[in-house]
Amino acid sequence: MSDQPPTHSLDCAPRPSHGYPTDDSQSVEKSQVKDSTASHPPASKPDPTTAPAPSHFHPPQQKTAPHAQNAAAEGGLPPTTPASPPELAHLKVKLQQALRQFPDFPSPGILFEDIMPLFSSHALHTDLIRVLELKVAEAFGTKTGEKSEVDVVVGLESRGFLFGPTLALRLGAGFVPLRKKGKLPGECETEGFEKEYGEDFFQLQKDAIAKGQRVVVVDDIIATGGSAAAAGRLVRKLGGELLGYVFMMELDFLKGRDKLDAPVHTLFAGQEEGLKKES
Amino acid sequence: MSDQPPTHSLDCAPRPSHGYPTDDSQSVEKSQVKDSTASHPPASKPDPTTAPAPSHFHPPQQKTAPHAQNAAAEGGLPPTTPASPPELAHLKVKLQQALRQFPDFPSPGILFEDIMPLFSSHALHTDLIRVLELKVAEAFGTKTGEKSEVDVVVGLESRGFLFGPTLALRLGAGFVPLRKKGKLPGECETEGFEKEYGEDFFQLQKDAIAKGQRVVVVDDIIATGGSAAAAGRLVRKLGGELLGYVFMMELDFLKGRDKLDAPVHTLFAGQEEGLKKES
Repeated sequence: MSDQPPTHSLDCAPRPSHGYPTDDSQSVEKSQVKDSTASHPPASKPDPTTAPAPSHFHPPQQKTAPHAQNAAAEGGLPPTTPASPPELAHLKVKLQQALRQFPDFPSPGILFEDIMPLFSSHALHTDLIRVLELKVAEAFGTKTGEKSEVDVVVGLESRGFLFGPTLALRLGAGFVPLRKKGKLPGECETEGFEKEYGEDFFQLQKDAIAKGQRVVVVDDIIATGGSAAAAGRLVRKLGGELLGYVFMMELDFLKGRDKLDAPVHTLFAGQEEGLKKES
Repeated sequence: MSDQPPTHSLDCAPRPSHGYPTDDSQSVEKSQVKDSTASHPPASKPDPTTAPAPSHFHPPQQKTAPHAQNAAAEGGLPPTTPASPPELAHLKVKLQQALRQFPDFPSPGILFEDIMPLFSSHALHTDLIRVLELKVAEAFGTKTGEKSEVDVVVGLESRGFLFGPTLALRLGAGFVPLRKKGKLPGECETEGFEKEYGEDFFQLQKDAIAKGQRVVVVDDIIATGGSAAAAGRLVRKLGGELLGYVFMMELDFLKGRDKLDAPVHTLFAGQEEGLKKES
């Protein structure tokens, strides 16, 4: 694995053009409007699923061989130093370019955001964790590295498990999973939330968070926000101090963040519009 | 976070006494027989579920505040140096002591192994990743650190997501998720396997592994081995070289490893017997 210049191209899918805002926390900076419907996991399936799908494209196979992007990556994770704003902006653009979109998955009218290329490439994965670390510090005024002053990272099942534990390790924090009811043993706190087709329940183990611990909740995408809201209520039930939420991406048009009463931060520009019926 | 002597106690659950073999790879070193039934995830629920449960105990609340166990943990992950055999043995004992057992979860007669304390404590989490790194190197004759010569870590949904990505990052490898059918977008390879109550299907994205890449498959626990076997077949379908499997624990009495045709390694002593009807 050799050092590489910061520029590189990925054989990734063509994607709807949109801007890459350098920061989308709290007041989301609206970039360009896309002619595509947006959604993500089946569990948080958005409403407009019956409308026609966006224009089709067929993403080519992506093959990003593991390769170290910079010398700082030695040791599995780069050193935890404060970021310069250009570092965060540069990394975010590079990472967002590697995301893939799959129209009509898992059902017609849904544009699925595939985050897996950010894990299958060692270099991108390294950058992703660095960006998350920087984002947390920027968002909550904490420090980078093990003395971050974040005590616990709560990750939502199951894509929040893909990066939550690594981020927690980086921040010197513990990692605690939020799971659907019935999967965690021992005494649990439970919170439900309404979905289109009924109620869903999420749990945290009661002893997973101590009173006063500073907690950040993470997941890949915020859609309707129901599970994230349940996570926040559970953190507070256990006595944790909810610093806020960090998502990789947001389906803006679903207004999930309106359900959350703590600061919400997202890494990438999200999908901002529901389907255009006349597209 | 201060350095600590190697001894420490955790406020964890009382647990059935059993030996802590220093290595359980391939030829599993049988330790003591336990008077308890063993099992794990509902999806791989073992057969003997109708028998009486083991004696009950109520694990006290565990509260392991984040704390660094050693100076090497600075930077989120310790440096990736070759291990001495005592280091691996010592860490394994410490980690296994922190596991919690919950009888009759998720249903009567099942002894559930709770691995979450290894993630909620930053110190134990740090040690866990180190142990996994050392185990992979020992098991497959690879190197520790980013130049490990492991190209891809495949993690099984969803507890394999808890440590697979961090391990991949440490090893300089990519991380690829194995998911149940219908959750991964794009072209996928699919493999099914028989379960008591029907067939289950798992998928890998077709472009996730390139021909000739060296692959390690990981999960928390091997029970019946069905999903792990499907993972192995999928890795080979994609042209990957399957180095073998690493699990945190094994339900020995389910003989899951008999289904796998690549080397199988586990970190901890597992549960070796089904329920004793007369216990």
